[in-house]
Amino acid sequence: MTFDTILVVGCGLIGSSIARAAKTYGQCQTVLVADKSESVCKTVAKLGFADGVAEGMAHHFAAQADLIVLCVPPGRMAEVAGEIIPAMKAGATLTDVGSIKGRVIETITPLLREDIHFIPGHPIAGTEFNGPEAGFAELFQHRWCVLTPTDPDHPSVAALKEFWEAIGSAVAIMTAERHDLVLATTSHVPHLIAYTLVGTAVDMEEVTRNEVVKFSAGGFRDFTRIAASDPVMWRDVFLANRDATLEVVDRFIEDLSALKRAIRWEDGDALLEHFSKTRDIRRKIIDAGQETDAPNFGRED
Amino acid sequence: MTFDTILVVGCGLIGSSIARAAKTYGQCQTVLVADKSESVCKTVAKLGFADGVAEGMAHHFAAQADLIVLCVPPGRMAEVAGEIIPAMKAGATLTDVGSIKGRVIETITPLLREDIHFIPGHPIAGTEFNGPEAGFAELFQHRWCVLTPTDPDHPSVAALKEFWEAIGSAVAIMTAERHDLVLATTSHVPHLIAYTLVGTAVDMEEVTRNEVVKFSAGGFRDFTRIAASDPVMWRDVFLANRDATLEVVDRFIEDLSALKRAIRWEDGDALLEHFSKTRDIRRKIIDAGQETDAPNFGRED
Repeated sequence: MTFDTILVVGCGLIGSSIARAAKTYGQCQTVLVADKSESVCKTVAKLGFADGVAEGMAHHFAAQADLIVLCVPPGRMAEVAGEIIPAMKAGATLTDVGSIKGRVIETITPLLREDIHFIPGHPIAGTEFNGPEAGFAELFQHRWCVLTPTDPDHPSVAALKEFWEAIGSAVAIMTAERHDLVLATTSHVPHLIAYTLVGTAVDMEEVTRNEVVKFSAGGFRDFTRIAASDPVMWRDVFLANRDATLEVVDRFIEDLSALKRAIRWEDGDALLEHFSKTRDIRRKIIDAGQETDAPNFGRED
Repeated sequence: MTFDTILVVGCGLIGSSIARAAKTYGQCQTVLVADKSESVCKTVAKLGFADGVAEGMAHHFAAQADLIVLCVPPGRMAEVAGEIIPAMKAGATLTDVGSIKGRVIETITPLLREDIHFIPGHPIAGTEFNGPEAGFAELFQHRWCVLTPTDPDHPSVAALKEFWEAIGSAVAIMTAERHDLVLATTSHVPHLIAYTLVGTAVDMEEVTRNEVVKFSAGGFRDFTRIAASDPVMWRDVFLANRDATLEVVDRFIEDLSALKRAIRWEDGDALLEHFSKTRDIRRKIIDAGQETDAPNFGRED
């Protein structure tokens, strides 16, 4: 056990999963939860996975914690950090789970104290559901967690790495800048595109919603999962990772324009070449244990 | 039982699923299969779901069949129809399962005989796998099948409808033009976008393939399923449904440009509004029995 007392601030899907996992895998004595929402606190109390629940900033909890994990939307991260840092005990570790790291570091760094350790983090795990009921202890099993510490050799980094590994994740350490570009590609732009396509289909006046629903098994339904993710969180992600998102989106639009052109000019060879090269990456993702190999994601089983 | 003898021409995922379903649900006495590929024919013979297998056009099978189902890629449909129609027995029904209907009708109509019935069809079902081993009898359960007959009141339409319903599908009847626009929205453009995004990510020199694989659970992996679909079939679909595809892609690009602009100008309200409206369509798809409500498509179960 690397941390005696853990405080989770913001108890949605990720926060509640961390709290549950910390207990389930015996990674702390005490798990405390703070959330600004009364109804979230009530639900957490009812679910019973935390040793203590407080509405608001919970400075008394912050003073006890060896590890504080900020699990609030990216747009609230700096405000919450500014409230909690003055209450932290000396030698404690602060981390977060935000989907972008550059902006978080930029805003939190000026608020830090010499005697605490801040290690930005991002577990690449989730579902399209949110709220404390949606969390589960196994969410991080066989997933990756990225840490972007300024000093990768500090002992607190090893301790936090050990924690993530104990609850099931592999840990990758990289710079915040690299994280934000890689995640723009593998997460942020895919979400933006899914949100866009689902919106386009829903807005097509010539095609009714009824038809979109009926015939969604033709491919459309695959996009609706991530387009059902938490809108507030994703608004914050795009605003905070603006430059990398726009760069990857522009490449995507270039590539889509090239395929459009191939369709317009009936260049079947170009289409076939493009469609053939995308198959092996799925096989690699399956082989890496990041995806099921069951047809249709196994959703019909 | 509406058809005594059924001939499936082209025995991939869809063809082999129809052959299996026809037997499993007792919808024919005899199922015959023809495929141009020797290895497919050998596999079908080994799997044992057909009463007869022939390599090539199988005119002797065509002469026996009450229903012939063309399950070849859209680009080969006319050629195969041209070969098979002269061998058909009088009064028999010809249908197909192609993902586009306008082009198929355009090319097959001049080849038809007065004494056979042609009913274009399209079952909205599939997986990312192909070949005769990938098929299964339950593929069409709770899915929709679209028929686009020129004469919806002809008794052969009722018989074919009954067949699809008996193997588990609901049947929708519409014009070919409407089908092609609706499916461009719910199937063709989603595939094109998935193929594009997966290609863009794989081509990003600044991001390694290794990173794309590792961090794919952030959203990217959802796109890789349909981007692993049969490249030949999809090349043919886009060439055959060119105009509707380009129309829907252009709308998608317009919408994506609007979201890009909102990100560039940090218009959080516009993003939040857009991201909030796409959630309810997934709920409707789940309620309509076209999707699982398990988190992450239930893939981790």
